[in-house]
Amino acid sequence: MASTPVTRDTINPKVLECEYAVRGEIVILAQKLQEDLKNNPKSQPFDEILYCNIGNPQSLGQKPITFFREVLALCDHPALLDKSETHSLFSADSIKRASQILSQIPGQATGAYSHSQGVKGLRDTIAAGIEARDGFPADPNDIFLTDGASPAVHMMMQLLIRSEKDGILCPIPQYPLYSASIALHGGTLVPYYLDEATGWGLEISELKKQLETAKSKGICVRALVVINPGNPTGQVLAENNQKQIVDFCKTEGLVLLADEVYQENVYVPDKKFYSFKKVARSMGYGEKDITLVSFQSVSKGYYGECGKRGGYMEITGFSPEVREQIYKLASVNLCSNISGQILASLVMSPPKAGDQCYESYSAEKNAILSSLAKRAQQLEHALNGLEGVSCNRAEGAMYLFPRIELPKKAVEAAKGAKTAPDTFYARRLLNATGIVVVPGSGFGQAAGTLHFRCTILPQEDRIPAIISRLTKFHEAFMKEFRD
Amino acid sequence: MASTPVTRDTINPKVLECEYAVRGEIVILAQKLQEDLKNNPKSQPFDEILYCNIGNPQSLGQKPITFFREVLALCDHPALLDKSETHSLFSADSIKRASQILSQIPGQATGAYSHSQGVKGLRDTIAAGIEARDGFPADPNDIFLTDGASPAVHMMMQLLIRSEKDGILCPIPQYPLYSASIALHGGTLVPYYLDEATGWGLEISELKKQLETAKSKGICVRALVVINPGNPTGQVLAENNQKQIVDFCKTEGLVLLADEVYQENVYVPDKKFYSFKKVARSMGYGEKDITLVSFQSVSKGYYGECGKRGGYMEITGFSPEVREQIYKLASVNLCSNISGQILASLVMSPPKAGDQCYESYSAEKNAILSSLAKRAQQLEHALNGLEGVSCNRAEGAMYLFPRIELPKKAVEAAKGAKTAPDTFYARRLLNATGIVVVPGSGFGQAAGTLHFRCTILPQEDRIPAIISRLTKFHEAFMKEFRD
Repeated sequence: MASTPVTRDTINPKVLECEYAVRGEIVILAQKLQEDLKNNPKSQPFDEILYCNIGNPQSLGQKPITFFREVLALCDHPALLDKSETHSLFSADSIKRASQILSQIPGQATGAYSHSQGVKGLRDTIAAGIEARDGFPADPNDIFLTDGASPAVHMMMQLLIRSEKDGILCPIPQYPLYSASIALHGGTLVPYYLDEATGWGLEISELKKQLETAKSKGICVRALVVINPGNPTGQVLAENNQKQIVDFCKTEGLVLLADEVYQENVYVPDKKFYSFKKVARSMGYGEKDITLVSFQSVSKGYYGECGKRGGYMEITGFSPEVREQIYKLASVNLCSNISGQILASLVMSPPKAGDQCYESYSAEKNAILSSLAKRAQQLEHALNGLEGVSCNRAEGAMYLFPRIELPKKAVEAAKGAKTAPDTFYARRLLNATGIVVVPGSGFGQAAGTLHFRCTILPQEDRIPAIISRLTKFHEAFMKEFRD
Repeated sequence: MASTPVTRDTINPKVLECEYAVRGEIVILAQKLQEDLKNNPKSQPFDEILYCNIGNPQSLGQKPITFFREVLALCDHPALLDKSETHSLFSADSIKRASQILSQIPGQATGAYSHSQGVKGLRDTIAAGIEARDGFPADPNDIFLTDGASPAVHMMMQLLIRSEKDGILCPIPQYPLYSASIALHGGTLVPYYLDEATGWGLEISELKKQLETAKSKGICVRALVVINPGNPTGQVLAENNQKQIVDFCKTEGLVLLADEVYQENVYVPDKKFYSFKKVARSMGYGEKDITLVSFQSVSKGYYGECGKRGGYMEITGFSPEVREQIYKLASVNLCSNISGQILASLVMSPPKAGDQCYESYSAEKNAILSSLAKRAQQLEHALNGLEGVSCNRAEGAMYLFPRIELPKKAVEAAKGAKTAPDTFYARRLLNATGIVVVPGSGFGQAAGTLHFRCTILPQEDRIPAIISRLTKFHEAFMKEFRD
């Protein structure tokens, strides 16, 4: 065989299959419009592009938590710790914490590769944070620090998927990292549908039905992905529902892949986040009963430190032989970035009551979380006021996922434009208002329904203008296409 | 099909196949011994473990470049820029550069996800740095910033490998990232042997021979990996040799994957680093003539910022359709960490003559590079003085790769211990001295030969003690096993 030039037809077909709408065609169009605006500010009917496509809080003006950044800066440049001026620039708590962290890193070498799972001292801190959160023990050797949650998800898919005969149960709608990763690793996504009518309820009967269907097609289902709080749906699972899910995985021998990156993002008083590990342990299930992976990230929560690419997975219930293979996979990439590792330890062990900086830290944290709750409510209310739009409340996470019923004429116009109706809507919205949302088809949706995902992340003072632009656009759109 | 419990036998067999000796069994043993030493300092015949297994300079005491760390700290905590005390703590150049960088990041949001390829302004800086290095244009749109070079290599393997029928030409010995990545992506490593007798020469006749052999087995060879300066071999390619390689890739339609992460690590006056892009362009070959990927990292050079996980690849000669797919792959992981991105821009655009901090920066840089050159020479000299050991000079990179001829009795003892002879030697060396090296089998070696890889990274004042420990061990080993 001769070598083959690299063309679309000769690359890995799994790459072609993979889709990632969160940064897909609408976003590429948005980047183009932004470029146009830069060159000619009058070229569009709006002043700026508003990226509501992705959970990227700091890109929309959210400020980082001061304590976290002070510690990071001191760790990046430890020479500061010996200078007297430092005490007037940094809080005493930050100086203390940075010194502690540096003492946990062999030789204080933050520029060195760490252990493949991450710096041991930081994993100790994270394990202690998990214990404090759950009330059950956590083992630092179960923690794998990663560059955000995405590489951890890839690692588990790489481990579990042997061929297209291996299936992973995923919610629909889902965060497209899962479908992309399953496609790249050549597995089969086995969908289970969240019930929009009951606030995106996760029904065990649906899990069972889809599992049986997959089995009947010769698919060996290996794991269940649960995103809690939900992305793009924003629902927070009830503890009782979580217990059923744990029992289902235990009975069916499935690895429970728990995406818990929004654990700090719960906005309603009647819901609370419980980690799946806490739920399983509280049911009396230990390592031998259930195999469980929990993903956490520094990108979400009230901190929103997406650019730092920090995160971890906590793995429990794997045999030593399999753990060895997971370790090997981690070691091929040497380690995750140390600033991200430090930040992961900070978010799992923030200032505590009594610490000097606790009040200012808490004020920053609470301002962000209460504002997010308010924005979620305002946007949800506005969306529900639009003709043909219905939207479940965002109990948690960072998104709304409204359902839109489009007039037949709009659906036909989309067909004419050779695009999906929700993409057609999102494109028109962008062109008219500069607001970037992601079409529901990027996440999956029940047949015959249309949605889009919109983050709740624009700053609070911008929300009224966004609502008014969105409302104006929607009314005009419906008027244009009304049957 | 029922779900299958996760055991060694039911995970992805590609994961089992993949090997990564740089963090393999010898290193795991070293970590255990280090734990033992911590609990009982008298438990071993040495005081400390000396990690010479991996190019990790700061773990062995190398200090980071002050300018780079000042800029990183200021970017992590931009509030410092407004404080008067900052001017007594940071150099004026660092303050200026940090301000420039922050102005290139939309909203100064270093905690935000960037463009999937990395912050555009930083890519502009890197492209300018490449232009200054090569004397040929570079396009910021060709740059993909990544968390170190490893993810970039994985991305290219993922793109090119469709099945085990796709082959990648790799040097033997090679850095095991390549064999691991090819194994994980299910391709075939097509080996070409570097000629130890001619200082690890890369012969075109060998490339041709191996290409033909692979073709005759039905393998479609898609790319050629060249590591220059070499890892683990330390050779620096002559420009003329590089021209031959470029012509070979052009003629055979192979993607040239150029691992150029050691571009700043050249220690001998008779050799100089030329990027493959410079070589190709100087031959008059443009985008349409050759497809070329250059990998660069912040982990190597004189900076050695391994823990920051920064790096990039520059891709040229791909069609727009294929580039779109590469962009999609990058976007699935959203972006690389921003501190690593900033650092990549700094290493490609360090202080220049005339800058206030240029002298202190140059002093730090030159001290590191001249010391590395000295250490390489001292260790090479010592190794060549040992019975049965011969070692090519390290012209560049961070390693020596001595060949060892072991007595038959030692080979038999290894067989008895069910391990490879070089692993046997490395294990004995570790147990006797605390020095961690990687057996040659982890990199591949010509049949019938044995080697180990040892970094040149221990600090200069430690080298005499290391040489004496190594010499003493080797003499005792040879005495024990002499035929």
